[in-house]
Amino acid sequence: MAGSTGSYALLDVSQARQRLLDYFSPTSEEIVPLNESHGRILARPIESTLDLPVFTHSSMDGFAVHAVDLREARKDRPAVLSVVEDIPAGSMPQATLESRQAARIMTGAVLPEGADAVVPVEFTDHFQTDSRPGAALPEAVSIFRAVQPGDYVRERGQDIKQGAQVLATSTRLRPQDIGLLAMLGITQVSVRRRPQVALFSSGDELVPIDQPLRPGSIHDSNAYSLAASIARDGGQAIYLGIARDREESVEFLLEEAADRKVDIIISSAGVSVGAFDFVREVVRKRGELQFWRVNMRPGKPLAFGFFKTIPFVGLPGNPVSAFVGYEVFLRPAIIKMSGFTGQFRNVRRVRLGEEVESDGRESYLRARITERDGYPVAHLTGHQGSGNLLSLVQANALLIIPSGVKSLPINTEVEAWLIDEGISWARFPDHA
Amino acid sequence: MAGSTGSYALLDVSQARQRLLDYFSPTSEEIVPLNESHGRILARPIESTLDLPVFTHSSMDGFAVHAVDLREARKDRPAVLSVVEDIPAGSMPQATLESRQAARIMTGAVLPEGADAVVPVEFTDHFQTDSRPGAALPEAVSIFRAVQPGDYVRERGQDIKQGAQVLATSTRLRPQDIGLLAMLGITQVSVRRRPQVALFSSGDELVPIDQPLRPGSIHDSNAYSLAASIARDGGQAIYLGIARDREESVEFLLEEAADRKVDIIISSAGVSVGAFDFVREVVRKRGELQFWRVNMRPGKPLAFGFFKTIPFVGLPGNPVSAFVGYEVFLRPAIIKMSGFTGQFRNVRRVRLGEEVESDGRESYLRARITERDGYPVAHLTGHQGSGNLLSLVQANALLIIPSGVKSLPINTEVEAWLIDEGISWARFPDHA
Repeated sequence: MAGSTGSYALLDVSQARQRLLDYFSPTSEEIVPLNESHGRILARPIESTLDLPVFTHSSMDGFAVHAVDLREARKDRPAVLSVVEDIPAGSMPQATLESRQAARIMTGAVLPEGADAVVPVEFTDHFQTDSRPGAALPEAVSIFRAVQPGDYVRERGQDIKQGAQVLATSTRLRPQDIGLLAMLGITQVSVRRRPQVALFSSGDELVPIDQPLRPGSIHDSNAYSLAASIARDGGQAIYLGIARDREESVEFLLEEAADRKVDIIISSAGVSVGAFDFVREVVRKRGELQFWRVNMRPGKPLAFGFFKTIPFVGLPGNPVSAFVGYEVFLRPAIIKMSGFTGQFRNVRRVRLGEEVESDGRESYLRARITERDGYPVAHLTGHQGSGNLLSLVQANALLIIPSGVKSLPINTEVEAWLIDEGISWARFPDHA
Repeated sequence: MAGSTGSYALLDVSQARQRLLDYFSPTSEEIVPLNESHGRILARPIESTLDLPVFTHSSMDGFAVHAVDLREARKDRPAVLSVVEDIPAGSMPQATLESRQAARIMTGAVLPEGADAVVPVEFTDHFQTDSRPGAALPEAVSIFRAVQPGDYVRERGQDIKQGAQVLATSTRLRPQDIGLLAMLGITQVSVRRRPQVALFSSGDELVPIDQPLRPGSIHDSNAYSLAASIARDGGQAIYLGIARDREESVEFLLEEAADRKVDIIISSAGVSVGAFDFVREVVRKRGELQFWRVNMRPGKPLAFGFFKTIPFVGLPGNPVSAFVGYEVFLRPAIIKMSGFTGQFRNVRRVRLGEEVESDGRESYLRARITERDGYPVAHLTGHQGSGNLLSLVQANALLIIPSGVKSLPINTEVEAWLIDEGISWARFPDHA
């Protein structure tokens, strides 16, 4: 009953979130192959297994030389060197370069002993001749300008020294990170196990989405949106199905979650408060359950507890409330379990495009941000009743109206969480 | 050879990108189950199959009433109505509500015939009594205040009318969109097929990452970073392996790509220009190939053509150049094929934290953005040599220095593409 929560203090959103987060810690480590590691979170730092570059090499197609031999080279008085070797990429030079000798060298090929610089082919009389591996090697090369020792040469270890840390614990692996690991010949990495998240819905009014609606019933939609959110956040959603308004039904699903040794159980109640009572009874009987009153809108008490020893969170059944509850409380918890410690939200300061009423609670309002005069401006996407799922679908952001505020005039700057994934608003449009 | 491209005009980055994009169009449609649709792009609009709400219902736990019966209800002079029915969520009311009658009703339950409003349980003498489904139904209820017709009632179709478009073609499906489709009982959706992207590397100096390096050789890293980027952008990467510096080897891999009927073939050359020659010969023989000179840094000519009828793009072998080339040219192409038409880049205006030199070409510089005094400030992550992969890994953005610019003073505002996925910089830190 709502009344049974009256004895709990009213918590700020940030207090409630912190209290929840304190119950969670990163999952254990597991090893994954590099080609399955995108988006995973490193469980330990990675040190370079090699010097990078691995060997001193040419950064251009050209000729390896002693720089001193070209001191006086000019366009009208080229230095002429004898070409003694051809060094394609991937092969080892055979000879040590003597004074006034040059070796034809490809980009990336090993610099021969004795050489201290490379002259790009553009500065020689062999520009635009066929220099493919296997093409005839010239006897001599005329070079039209001087180079300094080290020019067009990349020294072994100049970018990364063997043993240096290249990626820190808690890094979320991006394509470029994976590229570096591949370059180092690292074929597998130690990452945090994906948090296992059991999900169920409860309420006699719920019907699976592939079955026709009975009179008075609605489809079980939260399982689908929550499962997608959980996957986005690095977790693995395990959908247990719909619990009916009977203790045995709820208990059956909770036991299944426990058997699977999940990291957290999330229920989304039927829209009715009463429907949650069966969940409450079962969780209380086999663990513990608290209701936290949170000073937020959309709001309901947040149910938190343990079934046996598994953390349990009860979200409202209302789709908008369940979405916001997940964003505000569960997303940070799942990301904490995943081991990621960086910023995961796409947050922007935006201007209100209209006056906004609030009720003094910290409010998460559905809004659409567009750009006007180079600045992001937010308009509400419709009435903020928590049943209005269309307004959530039309929104690309949640506006956060701080607690204590009853009304904000147009043009007030507020914080917004972007809920279109992977995009943001520039101060001017992307030119792509 | 570099020289063979000399006859082509120098293109701006945006011209080259547009020219490339003109060769691509969205893939064909396919049907996927709703629970596998996250991140997919709709191939056609979706119209609502239902009115939402599906039926007129109560938005609170309470009592369904005729509002007119409560006109004079006050705390000290409650209206007393006889309770004639119990309506849990998920069931149909049996009776029509007569004058001075009430029905106990749960949140989400169908409003009975005759009723025009709901009184929340908090405004009655049954607050904090057991109202779970099955609990004893009281004979009468005392109500302490008046309500207006429509109060705490959600009308059938008030949010969405059957037949109304709820999602447009080209929408990238988010968790909340999937929730709405589930609510509508839509179990599968028509989306664009994931673009099939064949990838190979070429060059005798390349060694698979699980094999030890020979002297003078390096690991084939681009395949790994490109495959991850392609997957992030909605494509399916098909890694064909490493082509050796022989036409037969290149031809074998290209034929495999053709057999698989991929949508595009991407090669990343060995670091050597010469190594690309074999690819060039084979593509020319069996299709066509152009080199576009693009006024950008890191730059090389961009190779574009067709093998048989499949579009082919040749990226440089250098890991940084390949990464930037993918971001600038291939990412937009793959996203266009995926059917997505919205903004996909995370773009911000940032201030330079140091003076930056450029060479007049449009330059993509590796930088790290941090926040200072509430504004994003960029510092280069090291020397901008295109072999410096560590500087890319340490970067969280590419700074774009426009063409024609040789130097920009500290504090200049420039555009940055964020290359940490899914995050951005707020004007102040996320409070989560």
